[in-house]
Amino acid sequence: MSQTRLIQLEADILGKNDRYAAVNRGVFAGKGVLALNLVSSPGSGKTTLLCKTLEMLKDRLPLAVIEGDQQTTNDADRIRETGVKAIQVNTGKGCHLDAHMVGHAVESLGVEDCSILFIENVGNLVCPAGFDLGEAHKVAILSVTEGEDKPLKYPDMFAASDIALVNKVDLLPHLDFDIDLAEANLRRVNPKIRILRVSARSGEGMERWTAWLRGAAQMARSSLTDAEAAE
Amino acid sequence: MSQTRLIQLEADILGKNDRYAAVNRGVFAGKGVLALNLVSSPGSGKTTLLCKTLEMLKDRLPLAVIEGDQQTTNDADRIRETGVKAIQVNTGKGCHLDAHMVGHAVESLGVEDCSILFIENVGNLVCPAGFDLGEAHKVAILSVTEGEDKPLKYPDMFAASDIALVNKVDLLPHLDFDIDLAEANLRRVNPKIRILRVSARSGEGMERWTAWLRGAAQMARSSLTDAEAAE
Repeated sequence: MSQTRLIQLEADILGKNDRYAAVNRGVFAGKGVLALNLVSSPGSGKTTLLCKTLEMLKDRLPLAVIEGDQQTTNDADRIRETGVKAIQVNTGKGCHLDAHMVGHAVESLGVEDCSILFIENVGNLVCPAGFDLGEAHKVAILSVTEGEDKPLKYPDMFAASDIALVNKVDLLPHLDFDIDLAEANLRRVNPKIRILRVSARSGEGMERWTAWLRGAAQMARSSLTDAEAAE
Repeated sequence: MSQTRLIQLEADILGKNDRYAAVNRGVFAGKGVLALNLVSSPGSGKTTLLCKTLEMLKDRLPLAVIEGDQQTTNDADRIRETGVKAIQVNTGKGCHLDAHMVGHAVESLGVEDCSILFIENVGNLVCPAGFDLGEAHKVAILSVTEGEDKPLKYPDMFAASDIALVNKVDLLPHLDFDIDLAEANLRRVNPKIRILRVSARSGEGMERWTAWLRGAAQMARSSLTDAEAAE
């Protein structure tokens, strides 16, 4: 296939995805739902971090989870053990979730008004960057067991994210990871990115992260009526 | 001056501004301050909307205002009448605030931790779009007495904004303004923009807007320590 034809195909796919993403965004706004797209490389500790987050928030806010993986339903099973409802989307050979899959998953899941909907994307720092799911924010998770240069190597993903969680900071004493350099690299590709240092294991930074989430959920609720927003 | 030289000069100015903006962003993060850059054309009702907003929030959160105008201190005087502290920055011949001016104004003003800092930019839908002040969000205000095509004519500004307030909606019955068309145009230039319909006069939409602000302030506080964020 010629290069021109390939580029045209990619533009068509992205155009179609963006239309589905706009529909999802409308659905979320209508229900005052905060949708977040969690992205990272495999092994960043995303699912553990998510489980801990759900435990901390589940008595304060309605929550729901869409789990994206190529195969298996292990992650959705882990999520459901927290008592939060979850649906697994298997992408098969697909390397990312797209807005159409998410739209169907939201319908099947039945997301309550004013929920936080966590969409855990397939572990991949490349392809999910280009696919808007209709989320309010992309949340990038970077583990301190990875290299400090990840933001420079995968700039699109970190440029597209509003917040980066630098995870597993409890391991810092045992590693040569230069966290200040990693954060400087994050700001090089995205000067506006918010960075929080967290550890799902030790709990460090988890209050900040859940405070950020509660604020974002409050912002999402502002799309409801004046009376509902005032509550 | 040659075109190349002009472009180089512009790049230098913007590069310098971005460095000051990064410093401001660091100061705001260190204090858990939510900084907002309010942009609009002249006559959008920005100052009236701001005064009403301050009245609604001043008993809940610490607030501060930087007023940008080419000349006069009228607006800062109006703000101070609400009891909120304000500083006027006169840009003289300048058509926008820049990050350096804002940095000095923040120092003079003495912004409290966990404040919302409203930066009311010079009324201009072009130049302020290119100047990052270190704010968390640009807030575009569009009055229903303006044309529905403003987002298409000034796409940079609306693309750079996270939220658009469509103001003076109490006047809609007396105008031919097609608000759905205006919102569709906003979404054409920025599919992710949040849109709130407001009227400072009738109060419509003001609870949603202040709910959005309280959420954003909560997100800003998440840069403080775990204990402070948890409050």
